[in-house]
Amino acid sequence: MQQFDVYTSVADAAYQGAPGAYSEEAAQALLRTDARLMPCATLEQTFDAVVDSRASHAVVPVENAVSGTVPGVYELLLAHDFVVTGETSLNIDHVLVGPKGARRDGLRRVMSHPIALAQCADFFRAHRGVEAVTVFDTAGAVRLVVESGDPHAAAIASRRAAAMYGGEILAERIQDAPENWTRFLLLMSRAQAPQSRSGRKAIVACGLRHEPGSLAQALQHIAEKGLSVTKIEGHPIKGKPFEYRFVVETVAHDGGAIDASVFEGLSARTEWFALLGVYDPLPPQSASS
Amino acid sequence: MQQFDVYTSVADAAYQGAPGAYSEEAAQALLRTDARLMPCATLEQTFDAVVDSRASHAVVPVENAVSGTVPGVYELLLAHDFVVTGETSLNIDHVLVGPKGARRDGLRRVMSHPIALAQCADFFRAHRGVEAVTVFDTAGAVRLVVESGDPHAAAIASRRAAAMYGGEILAERIQDAPENWTRFLLLMSRAQAPQSRSGRKAIVACGLRHEPGSLAQALQHIAEKGLSVTKIEGHPIKGKPFEYRFVVETVAHDGGAIDASVFEGLSARTEWFALLGVYDPLPPQSASS
Repeated sequence: MQQFDVYTSVADAAYQGAPGAYSEEAAQALLRTDARLMPCATLEQTFDAVVDSRASHAVVPVENAVSGTVPGVYELLLAHDFVVTGETSLNIDHVLVGPKGARRDGLRRVMSHPIALAQCADFFRAHRGVEAVTVFDTAGAVRLVVESGDPHAAAIASRRAAAMYGGEILAERIQDAPENWTRFLLLMSRAQAPQSRSGRKAIVACGLRHEPGSLAQALQHIAEKGLSVTKIEGHPIKGKPFEYRFVVETVAHDGGAIDASVFEGLSARTEWFALLGVYDPLPPQSASS
Repeated sequence: MQQFDVYTSVADAAYQGAPGAYSEEAAQALLRTDARLMPCATLEQTFDAVVDSRASHAVVPVENAVSGTVPGVYELLLAHDFVVTGETSLNIDHVLVGPKGARRDGLRRVMSHPIALAQCADFFRAHRGVEAVTVFDTAGAVRLVVESGDPHAAAIASRRAAAMYGGEILAERIQDAPENWTRFLLLMSRAQAPQSRSGRKAIVACGLRHEPGSLAQALQHIAEKGLSVTKIEGHPIKGKPFEYRFVVETVAHDGGAIDASVFEGLSARTEWFALLGVYDPLPPQSASS
């Protein structure tokens, strides 16, 4: 578990969830296992911790294989002057966990983060009488269930969270898709981040000119510079109904560092452009048990 | 309120939420005010109602101006053999509503749909001691709060839901952004939908070839056919880690009907292609009070 020694000089990171959350594990992979980690109740509070200088980094989930983009995360990234300095993906394997002595057949309520609940839709289809209850995070759900001692309640979380809070595992691998992963980003405030950055992956945001084919033109430039688009999303602009900002994630085909001239080219081809990060992602990894 | 006369031959629609939900209002705009409407607890159950032939249509929120794409909705659309046959946007104006006799200064808990809670982040920043509690829908939150009679609890929902359940309005316009809208889609099973469809808007899904510039090529074709991209998103493919399907929404520049040859062109330029709908959207409208 994390250390809270305030005299240690290692980097801090805020993450969303209680100790035992998948985000905590991602933070340990992205920083160092002895980094001081700060649990936060919501994504907004995770960003606030960096804004208020209580943490130097934030680690946030950005996308899940089953449920897609984490709602609100790109919007928060765009609303803050933050940059992405790293990325990792965890293979997510959920267990159903109750308090000691609980039995699966008496189950009435299962609580977890809404995204974890969505990843286990088949379980709820097969157990029509069981109510899905949304709470802020997976590990916090285990803590609630274990503390309540209610034999009719269970949580959906990691095996690690089950062990951390002394819960009883009632079922394993209850997610619909065996290939269930979540991708996490490591964030810093732009002012604190190293000035010179490079890597094989980049995340950019842009506002397009109001002319036909402007998106195709920007993507054509990305392709000409030897980059693949790995993700693209349009996000509504607050206060400008039905106008969008686009977030584009790209990687170099050849696995080398991205040629930085692509950013000037994109800036010239768009109405508004921001480089949100250039970095080398960590390879995908399994969540520890 | 809706009629439940099973002998009426008007079209049925399932929607997510309790009576009074924004989705119910969107359904009334998209169908007829006397259509039989079926409230459903979750998005999954809304889709299931059409699969099981309990409703001929489903009305689901797809995107909000502040919180972005509704999590899981495109994934459900892609997982079902459904087509989009209509669209409308509602201007969303939230009120804070408690049981009769409640006062704003004793507030401890505010419950609503997670997306509505996210739209009111400034309210929770200004009231640090107030806990945000997620429930399945806005109107259901009002019902819970009014039935509980708890003077320390309130809900975030529409003025219409407040009136429907006899709640007391404690604050108005509590969303962060004055320009807060949600876009809703009208869905049918492909087998039930009219064969010949046309309109000025189309939603398509495609899987790209594994070659550089394949996304730029597809979008270039869309631009050449006189269409603008109004939304684009990549969605992870279940069971194929880090591979994506793209959903693209397009409209004809000239406001006329889309030239259907663009779909053949896209099919030829992609590995996999599906036309999810061609239709004329309704103009944006204000939520009724």
